[in-house]
Amino acid sequence: MARNTQVTADHNAPPITQILAEYVASHPSRGWSDAVDHEAHRTFLNWLGCTIGAAHHEAAKSALAAAQILQTAPQASLPGRQEKVDMGSAALINGISSHTFDFDDTHLKTIIHPAGPVASAVLALAEHKGLSGRALIDALVLGIDVSCRVGNTMYPEHYDRGWHITGSTGMLGAAAGCARLLGLDVQQTAMALGIAASQPVGMREQFGTMTKPFHPGGAARAGLMSALMASQGFTASPKALEAPRGMIQTISTKYAWNEITDELGQRFEISFNTYKPFACGIVIHPSIDACTQLRAQGVLADQVERIELKVHSLVLELTGKKEPADGLQGKFSVYHGCACGLIFGKAGEDQYADEIVNRPDMVALRRKVEVVVDDSIDEASADVTAFLKDGRKVHVFVEHAIGSLQNPMTDANLESKFHDLSDPVLGAARTTQVIEACWKLGQSPDVRSLTTLSQG
Amino acid sequence: MARNTQVTADHNAPPITQILAEYVASHPSRGWSDAVDHEAHRTFLNWLGCTIGAAHHEAAKSALAAAQILQTAPQASLPGRQEKVDMGSAALINGISSHTFDFDDTHLKTIIHPAGPVASAVLALAEHKGLSGRALIDALVLGIDVSCRVGNTMYPEHYDRGWHITGSTGMLGAAAGCARLLGLDVQQTAMALGIAASQPVGMREQFGTMTKPFHPGGAARAGLMSALMASQGFTASPKALEAPRGMIQTISTKYAWNEITDELGQRFEISFNTYKPFACGIVIHPSIDACTQLRAQGVLADQVERIELKVHSLVLELTGKKEPADGLQGKFSVYHGCACGLIFGKAGEDQYADEIVNRPDMVALRRKVEVVVDDSIDEASADVTAFLKDGRKVHVFVEHAIGSLQNPMTDANLESKFHDLSDPVLGAARTTQVIEACWKLGQSPDVRSLTTLSQG
Repeated sequence: MARNTQVTADHNAPPITQILAEYVASHPSRGWSDAVDHEAHRTFLNWLGCTIGAAHHEAAKSALAAAQILQTAPQASLPGRQEKVDMGSAALINGISSHTFDFDDTHLKTIIHPAGPVASAVLALAEHKGLSGRALIDALVLGIDVSCRVGNTMYPEHYDRGWHITGSTGMLGAAAGCARLLGLDVQQTAMALGIAASQPVGMREQFGTMTKPFHPGGAARAGLMSALMASQGFTASPKALEAPRGMIQTISTKYAWNEITDELGQRFEISFNTYKPFACGIVIHPSIDACTQLRAQGVLADQVERIELKVHSLVLELTGKKEPADGLQGKFSVYHGCACGLIFGKAGEDQYADEIVNRPDMVALRRKVEVVVDDSIDEASADVTAFLKDGRKVHVFVEHAIGSLQNPMTDANLESKFHDLSDPVLGAARTTQVIEACWKLGQSPDVRSLTTLSQG
Repeated sequence: MARNTQVTADHNAPPITQILAEYVASHPSRGWSDAVDHEAHRTFLNWLGCTIGAAHHEAAKSALAAAQILQTAPQASLPGRQEKVDMGSAALINGISSHTFDFDDTHLKTIIHPAGPVASAVLALAEHKGLSGRALIDALVLGIDVSCRVGNTMYPEHYDRGWHITGSTGMLGAAAGCARLLGLDVQQTAMALGIAASQPVGMREQFGTMTKPFHPGGAARAGLMSALMASQGFTASPKALEAPRGMIQTISTKYAWNEITDELGQRFEISFNTYKPFACGIVIHPSIDACTQLRAQGVLADQVERIELKVHSLVLELTGKKEPADGLQGKFSVYHGCACGLIFGKAGEDQYADEIVNRPDMVALRRKVEVVVDDSIDEASADVTAFLKDGRKVHVFVEHAIGSLQNPMTDANLESKFHDLSDPVLGAARTTQVIEACWKLGQSPDVRSLTTLSQG
């Protein structure tokens, strides 16, 4: 028998589905500062490098094999690979690849990884339709704005409850971006957002499995399909986001509606995007950064008697694995992270290979790391002291790690990271061409020049 | 910064993902009574009639148009239509059609419409692979058992919160059914359930729009794709359903784990499936049934001075639309329902056409219906008295409406309903053949004989 009660309900939410639809459909092309536009290019470049880098991982391979069972049409490419698949499958698989190494971007206020769902969807659609780079960048900025604003509305309660917020907001960003690319009007855009609102993807329990990167991929596909369905007349509730039994109130008990409406069209959430310098959770980044600085100051691994690392208790709680057995476990080990910083001066995906995690010098060094919990140190900081065999002490304090908003990756840092990811797949020369094409994407008459260049 | 808190959590849930995977992968074919097997055929027949009946509705048309943008391969058919599409799109579109008229089946304990997600997925897969009717029926029983048991675990809190429980459990049933058809082992089946667990579909705010029937369709597609991905090695958490940040605890605060495990393999939830005799919400059914009984007793509309209908307050709360303006509004009008019962003796989709809702004799009769709220009458009952112009009174009390568990639709009722839905699409002669093929489905060596017959 139908029931008519609800645990909590706000019947006076502003009409945010309509507000966002108007914004996405009518905000002028490049209606933002040069800084925002450059951030969009950085976001896209970083997404593409991650996608190419993981294009041959088991996750991408098995998802592609499943898509091929559907005998898909060759509509859109998979950067770093030769195969083409239909747009929906390309959105899915590229979204998976982009997040497979946990090396993509982070909107720190919500810990959304914003590019995965949005860039994966809009690139597939723009490629198939031969649209301009300008159209793609516009769609990326607006799509990310939608998903991050909805994330701001629900975070942290929604995340604490168990949702992987990247996939449970990303389908809205993907729908928004694709609606924009398709030139949908306000009403159709509202329907696209509404159809997508019924499809949040992903729970945190999946972390550590292929279904984690499936979340941005699934959200990308859902958003793209929602926009295509809306373009063909499919309908949804015009209050699908905000109604008492709409998406937001169903999947969150926090709904700060002003996060949608404040400075809409003036403040762009992509401005607050950050890029991971290290291929692991950001909670370890200050510690790795500190150890790379020890290395830069001339400290060598075999000089070290012990390393004292002072960090907030959360660091140990989330990444306290003392003896990681393989690469995946290494990502949850601040000890391994410190060893990477001191021995390699970096912690890219290569440094999380199983054989690196088990290399004797790495094992020996990480056993010399002693973690001291000190909650007077911010979660985003790290205080490290190397005690050397000759009695010397070398001290480094990192307040804001590289890759944070306060200490962002430079364009050169991003290019270097891209090379690390893409060179083994496309070769260094073509990788350089792809990077160049990304920086100029806003002027490109057809994104297919980039996607052709990115094929593996 | 990652957070590590959760609102509520049960860390001691039984390993239900694994338990369900073992059950789906290893329960013997036809490992149930004849009654259960016959109910599976009734469930399939009813699903197919609804799907054929709505195959040319705008919802199916626009979803098909969107799928065709993907240039899908002709792998599976759409009953009632000529076109073929890939299996994933067939699962989606057939799922949409089956629920478009709100005329499908209901598992009353959870108000899940179980066939939509499961039958839509398993038929598409079985057709493409040329599997037997027996394999399909087995997959249907097991898939529906999985989704309804998970529904039992979470209902009612999960539904009250805003989830359309058909789509938010159906992807598990579809994944289970498809895993069974693909012959996946226990481990792969657990992965299929796990991938699906990240994809619950649908909020109740969408009721009244095309996105409502999208929910079973989206769940069907998600479940089918999850099984295909698992078959290709894609991984998920082996505790994706039950873990503190797994699906069930993320989307419900009620989790009665015993609903999964009690009598598993002995009690089959499909036994409790019911079929709608009337094309509207079941809360109106006792009232319509009572008015059809008035008609059967010889009461004519133009003899009626007034009709007094005594029902539980919930009936008026949910379906109290006094002056519906069109067919959709008519579905939320117990007044229109009573007029259908007395004038037509039925309330199929035809009786919810806009022109019927606005026909003068219908308008006049429904204005003569006076509803008296009486909470001593059960929600599933109705008490109706016709006061005639000649002074006579005719009284009918319906304790359990036709279509309820206590007063089920007979096989003949189901055939008659199927003809009403399918004759306008396939013609009466072919419809009779399709019905015959459905009853014999368990003996069919290849489901394609049925799908070919069902093409429009």
